[in-house]
Amino acid sequence: MTLSRKPLSGMRELTPGEKRVEDYIVKRLREAGAVYGFEEYETPVLEPLELFLAKSGSELAVKQSYNFTDKGGRKLIMRPELTPSLARMVAASGELIYPVKWMSFPVCYRYERPQRGRVREFMQFNLDILGTSGLQAELEVFLVLRRIMNSLGASPDQYAIRYSSRRLALEILRSCGMTEEEMAQAYAVIDKKDKIKPDEWKGLILETIKDERNAGTVIKFASCSDPNAPWLREAVGGTEAFDEIVKFSGMLKDAGISEALFDASVVRGLDYYTGIVFEVMDTGSNNRRAICGGGRYDNLVGMFGGQKVTGVGFGLGLLTLELFLKTYGLIPDGIYGKQPADIFLAVYSDEERVFAVNLAEKLRNFGVSVEIDITGKNLSKQFKIAGRKLIGYIAVIGPEEVASGRIILRNMTSGIETECKVSGVPGILRDSCVGGGAN
Amino acid sequence: MTLSRKPLSGMRELTPGEKRVEDYIVKRLREAGAVYGFEEYETPVLEPLELFLAKSGSELAVKQSYNFTDKGGRKLIMRPELTPSLARMVAASGELIYPVKWMSFPVCYRYERPQRGRVREFMQFNLDILGTSGLQAELEVFLVLRRIMNSLGASPDQYAIRYSSRRLALEILRSCGMTEEEMAQAYAVIDKKDKIKPDEWKGLILETIKDERNAGTVIKFASCSDPNAPWLREAVGGTEAFDEIVKFSGMLKDAGISEALFDASVVRGLDYYTGIVFEVMDTGSNNRRAICGGGRYDNLVGMFGGQKVTGVGFGLGLLTLELFLKTYGLIPDGIYGKQPADIFLAVYSDEERVFAVNLAEKLRNFGVSVEIDITGKNLSKQFKIAGRKLIGYIAVIGPEEVASGRIILRNMTSGIETECKVSGVPGILRDSCVGGGAN
Repeated sequence: MTLSRKPLSGMRELTPGEKRVEDYIVKRLREAGAVYGFEEYETPVLEPLELFLAKSGSELAVKQSYNFTDKGGRKLIMRPELTPSLARMVAASGELIYPVKWMSFPVCYRYERPQRGRVREFMQFNLDILGTSGLQAELEVFLVLRRIMNSLGASPDQYAIRYSSRRLALEILRSCGMTEEEMAQAYAVIDKKDKIKPDEWKGLILETIKDERNAGTVIKFASCSDPNAPWLREAVGGTEAFDEIVKFSGMLKDAGISEALFDASVVRGLDYYTGIVFEVMDTGSNNRRAICGGGRYDNLVGMFGGQKVTGVGFGLGLLTLELFLKTYGLIPDGIYGKQPADIFLAVYSDEERVFAVNLAEKLRNFGVSVEIDITGKNLSKQFKIAGRKLIGYIAVIGPEEVASGRIILRNMTSGIETECKVSGVPGILRDSCVGGGAN
Repeated sequence: MTLSRKPLSGMRELTPGEKRVEDYIVKRLREAGAVYGFEEYETPVLEPLELFLAKSGSELAVKQSYNFTDKGGRKLIMRPELTPSLARMVAASGELIYPVKWMSFPVCYRYERPQRGRVREFMQFNLDILGTSGLQAELEVFLVLRRIMNSLGASPDQYAIRYSSRRLALEILRSCGMTEEEMAQAYAVIDKKDKIKPDEWKGLILETIKDERNAGTVIKFASCSDPNAPWLREAVGGTEAFDEIVKFSGMLKDAGISEALFDASVVRGLDYYTGIVFEVMDTGSNNRRAICGGGRYDNLVGMFGGQKVTGVGFGLGLLTLELFLKTYGLIPDGIYGKQPADIFLAVYSDEERVFAVNLAEKLRNFGVSVEIDITGKNLSKQFKIAGRKLIGYIAVIGPEEVASGRIILRNMTSGIETECKVSGVPGILRDSCVGGGAN
């Protein structure tokens, strides 16, 4: 039987070149979190199904997930998102120092039809602040997002951090006299605003919300881009939700986060959000999926019993971010063509092999990355391998090198040859940086 | 309903402190591979079940794995090991430059009863060389292993790289006139040698191998620690397998790898090994599980059709390695108690908050890690948070700081206070390294 040469559809398989791109992005994300004092943690891929049934919404937990019963009869799920596991971990940790500021790079799973920017196995970046309820936490999360995008070379006109408030939406819908069920329906159609054509969307609203006046209010609200709009103040002024969004909008201005835009159509799909919600979007037309989505969840830790712990955070999809960066040409060229080693040591014959292996070890002790011939092929074939691997320097170890203990380093770009002792190699490499090494 | 606060048994959940330990080990492993020119890749966690049925052995693929049927009727497995996926990826890549030298950090899954050093979800380090058949590849893999252990502070007397040869075992068993089935049984009992008491093991051999003379040969072989032993030469001298092991033993001596010890009882469980096999073991008595296991597999890529590609590599369990390092006290203290940020910025009152947030951003632009108060609590409570987080420097942002644009950095270890501009902070931190930062 011949096995398939392809991985399952939508799964994450990365060649070294693709992995370098992901690593580049991961490094920037990690650095952005670290300068704010966020620490990394990990949670399992396999979780009890009930953990996600409780709060993520059953659509995600059952229909759009990989779930199964294990040999011990347990109902398991391959996590579709990280936040419930984080909440569990926080609930279980007795000695945390609040505010807890944690980040993680979970691989998550969804059973959906793969398409551009949507796959079945994907890496996320999650960042959360737990244990403090003021808007300073939301502000800090927005600052991290700005720093991420900035550190990856994105300019503020290429993306927007769109934000709104679940509480504000709730107040508006309540002011219409809607029932809980009608409100849930309204959220679902508000969420569709930027996913379908404007006319279609209006049609959908009028179809879903039977009361024409209420439908009009929902359309007006979801189209609102100014938290200080007079009609909004008239409708819900004086409520905590209104005061909060106005205050937060001012804080974003004070911090100079010009890419943050109020957009009342932002709802975010997850059931557990209770306050400010937000997403990062490409302002161009190539990438319609959110790069990142998040918000405040006030009751998530509570489902494990014990004290209430409030949180705010986001999940950022590395694949959607990568597509965004590629759209704007923001992946540095050097990432793709990076050489695997600094030096290739060619071996003249088996006579010199022991000497060459030990010399390579000495170079590596200096931190130099050395690929040595292990094929036993002739020199011209060895050179070919070194060339195809884009290695910047070659040295041949032959009888003279064994006798003198010195080597001749050939710079493959300039052709310049330098004779030196082993201890001189790191200096030569430092002085003349060839090859890709761009991160 | 209150949900459980515990993850599923045997799953990988890491607090920031535990994650730092893993990160420390990952960093050393990655660096060790990189100085030999190994490049990182990734393969999916979810794979078709048949990929593992074919070569890993059905015990591992079916009984000891998480496998299930997905919504589309596909039989899937959460990978119990990485190598078959690597072979598939190599078979599918048309333009690889051989020798391929790749490494990866897969999270793998086994449905086994959790115990010390054995869990259900675990991270491995895999490193493989593909496309070259000489023993130079095996030697390089051993050099990487020595470098790993050395870079983690292990001395050569604390561990051994035990090696043998599947081909040699095959020759010996063939010379006894055993059938294929008898040979498979013999492998299984040879493998038990160091897992049960010597007497028990001998009993098991005599019970399994009916012919008493053959049983004696198997006992003698499995107890052999010298590839140049005269009786071995007499039994299988002149075979390729014998010449190979003698040659390899000499190469290890030439490279000064004194921790490599021939031990004919090393068989390794996986079905696909065909040549040299090896494992890294703690020489003490605390850790009886192999830290690492590997070998040469000559026919693995072939199961995808197309050309034959030979390979040699290993899987190293990060948890067993961590237990080993802890046994010998080799995890640096600083890893555990590392501060999450360089500086804590305390905020005197809401009046100074905008100024403080913007000042923190400037410090972060210099690469300084800054935790700023986001709780709005009074100063003494802020100091308490900073203290509990072990942050080495504190600065209070009050009216005077806003007026002067200068801050007073207090070193929390020495108590020394230094007044400076924002741009002066990185220099002060460089000059006086407080806190943990030990990697």
